[in-house]
Amino acid sequence: MPIKNFRWFIEALSPEEGHLHGIQRALFSAQTPFQSLDIMELGSYGKALILDGKIQSSLLDEFIYHETLVHPAMLSHPAPKNVFIVGGGEGATLREVLRHPSVERALMVDIDEEVVNRCRELLPEWHRGAFDDPRAEVRFLDARRYLEETDERFDVIIIDISEPVEEGPAYLLFTREFYRIVHRRLTDHGVIALQAGTVSLSNLSCFTAIHQTLRTAFPVVAPYWATIPSFALPWGFSIASKGSDPRTFGPGAVDRLIAERIGPDLRYYDGQTHQMSFLLPKYVRRHLEEEKRIIEDNAPLFTFH
Amino acid sequence: MPIKNFRWFIEALSPEEGHLHGIQRALFSAQTPFQSLDIMELGSYGKALILDGKIQSSLLDEFIYHETLVHPAMLSHPAPKNVFIVGGGEGATLREVLRHPSVERALMVDIDEEVVNRCRELLPEWHRGAFDDPRAEVRFLDARRYLEETDERFDVIIIDISEPVEEGPAYLLFTREFYRIVHRRLTDHGVIALQAGTVSLSNLSCFTAIHQTLRTAFPVVAPYWATIPSFALPWGFSIASKGSDPRTFGPGAVDRLIAERIGPDLRYYDGQTHQMSFLLPKYVRRHLEEEKRIIEDNAPLFTFH
Amino acid sequence: MPIKNFRWFIEALSPEEGHLHGIQRALFSAQTPFQSLDIMELGSYGKALILDGKIQSSLLDEFIYHETLVHPAMLSHPAPKNVFIVGGGEGATLREVLRHPSVERALMVDIDEEVVNRCRELLPEWHRGAFDDPRAEVRFLDARRYLEETDERFDVIIIDISEPVEEGPAYLLFTREFYRIVHRRLTDHGVIALQAGTVSLSNLSCFTAIHQTLRTAFPVVAPYWATIPSFALPWGFSIASKGSDPRTFGPGAVDRLIAERIGPDLRYYDGQTHQMSFLLPKYVRRHLEEEKRIIEDNAPLFTFH
Amino acid sequence: MPIKNFRWFIEALSPEEGHLHGIQRALFSAQTPFQSLDIMELGSYGKALILDGKIQSSLLDEFIYHETLVHPAMLSHPAPKNVFIVGGGEGATLREVLRHPSVERALMVDIDEEVVNRCRELLPEWHRGAFDDPRAEVRFLDARRYLEETDERFDVIIIDISEPVEEGPAYLLFTREFYRIVHRRLTDHGVIALQAGTVSLSNLSCFTAIHQTLRTAFPVVAPYWATIPSFALPWGFSIASKGSDPRTFGPGAVDRLIAERIGPDLRYYDGQTHQMSFLLPKYVRRHLEEEKRIIEDNAPLFTFH
Repeated sequence: MPIKNFRWFIEALSPEEGHLHGIQRALFSAQTPFQSLDIMELGSYGKALILDGKIQSSLLDEFIYHETLVHPAMLSHPAPKNVFIVGGGEGATLREVLRHPSVERALMVDIDEEVVNRCRELLPEWHRGAFDDPRAEVRFLDARRYLEETDERFDVIIIDISEPVEEGPAYLLFTREFYRIVHRRLTDHGVIALQAGTVSLSNLSCFTAIHQTLRTAFPVVAPYWATIPSFALPWGFSIASKGSDPRTFGPGAVDRLIAERIGPDLRYYDGQTHQMSFLLPKYVRRHLEEEKRIIEDNAPLFTFH
Repeated sequence: MPIKNFRWFIEALSPEEGHLHGIQRALFSAQTPFQSLDIMELGSYGKALILDGKIQSSLLDEFIYHETLVHPAMLSHPAPKNVFIVGGGEGATLREVLRHPSVERALMVDIDEEVVNRCRELLPEWHRGAFDDPRAEVRFLDARRYLEETDERFDVIIIDISEPVEEGPAYLLFTREFYRIVHRRLTDHGVIALQAGTVSLSNLSCFTAIHQTLRTAFPVVAPYWATIPSFALPWGFSIASKGSDPRTFGPGAVDRLIAERIGPDLRYYDGQTHQMSFLLPKYVRRHLEEEKRIIEDNAPLFTFH
Repeated sequence: MPIKNFRWFIEALSPEEGHLHGIQRALFSAQTPFQSLDIMELGSYGKALILDGKIQSSLLDEFIYHETLVHPAMLSHPAPKNVFIVGGGEGATLREVLRHPSVERALMVDIDEEVVNRCRELLPEWHRGAFDDPRAEVRFLDARRYLEETDERFDVIIIDISEPVEEGPAYLLFTREFYRIVHRRLTDHGVIALQAGTVSLSNLSCFTAIHQTLRTAFPVVAPYWATIPSFALPWGFSIASKGSDPRTFGPGAVDRLIAERIGPDLRYYDGQTHQMSFLLPKYVRRHLEEEKRIIEDNAPLFTFH
Repeated sequence: MPIKNFRWFIEALSPEEGHLHGIQRALFSAQTPFQSLDIMELGSYGKALILDGKIQSSLLDEFIYHETLVHPAMLSHPAPKNVFIVGGGEGATLREVLRHPSVERALMVDIDEEVVNRCRELLPEWHRGAFDDPRAEVRFLDARRYLEETDERFDVIIIDISEPVEEGPAYLLFTREFYRIVHRRLTDHGVIALQAGTVSLSNLSCFTAIHQTLRTAFPVVAPYWATIPSFALPWGFSIASKGSDPRTFGPGAVDRLIAERIGPDLRYYDGQTHQMSFLLPKYVRRHLEEEKRIIEDNAPLFTFH
């Protein structure tokens, strides 16, 4: 049993399950207009960003989450120039996008200015200067409305937002209507990537519903996953595109693309990892096929909070 | 935050991290001569076997653990007749082994008679009658000593024991000396499989040390993994053999072997799952290569307790 | 930080406060028609009865609760013959009542037969044979209805029930209407005693409201308290009567009465303890006076659950 | 079960018992040369000072602790002019001492400058300007050494320090040798008061050993107690003096002294509370008499940590 520490962060995973983290230091805590914001140093995972009581990323393993979210989609496009990031408060998604030399513009739109500012100040290991890159632009707006109103088109759109909890700001960015808006904002070879909830057997319905909902808006949908230990439960992602399918890239092709476009600094993602990520266990594939639910603005999906 | 429930099982994953489970019912609790034994019904995972405060398997996801531990090794052997199981108290490893029609004898040697008896009585969903199969034999002995003293040879040896905690009964079954004993008890095409600790970034050293230790005794060592959600952290396994390498089997070949030998009833393991399991993320491969430690009887490895 | 134990009982004292107990053994758990029933052995307190997730009594300190609840009221009556116990499932209130030689009949009416049966079987240290005393009678009925319908009159009525939680069986036994029914069932020198919720500063309103409500039905109301450590928060009680006031008994008088009627076996209650119990801190007295609320059937009071 | 909050402070009361507090805000956290220092706002108790993971005082009920510690001793002296405070970091003990108009000098000696400075800044409700009173003097020294080396004599010495945990700075201020030093520093009618650990039945040995140890150095020792809900367990105190015995003061006498010397602002302590505090339950008195242990520098007592 953990000893010595007396301050604990309990992340509720369900009404009957929680993840217990010793708090080494509480660095910042506030209620923004949109969510509760905590930055704490956790004993096993280092600094972590916690929104509405759920870990968004931790120092130890954020590289797994961000490399997974960004690079398969970026490599699925021949030469992405314009990239749009929904959310991505910590600036790490931006950091990974900016590794790609073809990128001329990376526009990050996050609704919560206070989260971004606080991450900028307290989590330098995440953004590593990405916010100051001349190609980067950050705007504090409702990303859905921005995409509805703009004429711009993007080669890659990365949706890096928190889970669709009932009281949170994210649930209208997981619907059929939103995915259609996103589809219209893509260039001809456009690709999107997003985090899609856990792939734990006890909780698959968010992941499978997002899959079916994406399929109503995109001809190609490629679900994939990664294990980010600070999340406790295994995590799902998805790439959707107008044609490109990351599952057609073999490990050798991916390693070549990484060498050309990114370089040697990745710690999680390479050809073998790429291949592994898009292979799903039998029970997950079965649930994906059996899922009938389409998430709509009028019939939103909420995850546990 | 979890509500309503007031009885909680806290599994300590490290001094700074725990997994919190609501207890629906406490079915059995005792201290055996070897370890503490609890069978509880947990809110998110159903019934679970807990030894020394660590979850061994739960109703919801034991199929992931047991299919992963047994079938890749069984399929790596042309036609396994004699199978030896170290540990495997719940009888589920036995259950999976007995799916293979080539099996003539499955000898399970577990040191803790009380654990096996209690699982036999309270966890029928695990053994599903395997203990009563005419091919099965269960003996309550120290498996290491048994293997040291017997002349018998086995086609497949599955090591299904709890983690090597300092006070527990398992740590001498994770050493170079033990793996040599196991190697001598294999037939010419013999294969072994074992659970090898977590592959979480915060805790890789057990998995990597076991890998290097196996390499001192076997020409082929193929590490692999699975995510068993009730374990909280992703889990590592390894196959070691005299020649057969499961990584050479493509998904189509595995699916054919499963159809021939096992049938359609598996829920986790198939060709695609097989392929996925043996692919490891970049950082895990790197740690495996960099690991120097060999576990020996005189220099045992202990995991956190 | 508590180590080694991994099973915990968390008693919620408020939405922001809990009491954490290591579970040594889970002896019994069930849902009765009225409440959840657990009998567990807790690390610091020994065996304990827990109803609806709240500790009712523990082996270590039940003597404090039961001596406090029973003897001041019993000694406030010249020679109690007929005693009525509302609730008292464990049989310990009965045990204390039966110490008094004047008692000819002790009728215990508890709504929950399963709780009483289970306590009878698993908590012998509580009843110590009281259930088998020829003077004792136990009936499984709604005590309020019993008192409404009977003609019997009692010298002492002890109300030993759990807190008035919204979903529980007890809240209609904390109202003005109920106290009037109780008053009518008393003989001329009749006295009642009851537990009245915590006297913790964070939570005084139950205790103070019960006080004002009793005053609508009885000419004499004497609030008092005791600290029962397993409850975490200090606990309030009250005596109400048709005339007798325990606060007029000095320590010497109480010691003499104890010697005459009870003997030397009490561990908590004597003259000095009696005097201490009826003295309340300044802030409690102030809140008692300022309280305006009267609890009624149509305006019940619910404590936190 | 507490909901919504996800940050928790778990105060370990024993290896099998803890008190769980929701953290509203973490205001300050640091490791001083002597102990860990946290100032947090807890859900049920408001701001609280926590040293080495144990609550020292909380906004809701610090008045109970500080009025109890200071006033009985101050009133036991005819006209205290010089007062010495050992510890008392928050400045609230100083605040209560300075209510007495006879006081000409209140010297507070606390070993931990950082604790005092931080309390001064973040807990104004505690000191309420006491630190700036011209009669007050604060020095950051080892109080035991100060008392050993000084010639000064004091009318009242208040020992307001944390519990004698093994790793903490306080355990040498609970010994026979220390009490003798204190005795020598008193004027003829000198009185001391100190907190003496819990009086919970599960943990009485600290309180009873301190009692017997004080008796080796003082002719009059008067143990007393109070319930401070944020402490979870009931708390013990003791007054020791060269002759004055607070138990000889009746409630009327105490009320008159309070009116003369302090005024109407006390919330916990008055004549009735005084009388209540010095009355102990039967089992506590018995344990006090049966205790044989004397705490010495060479045989220190450590409380759980």
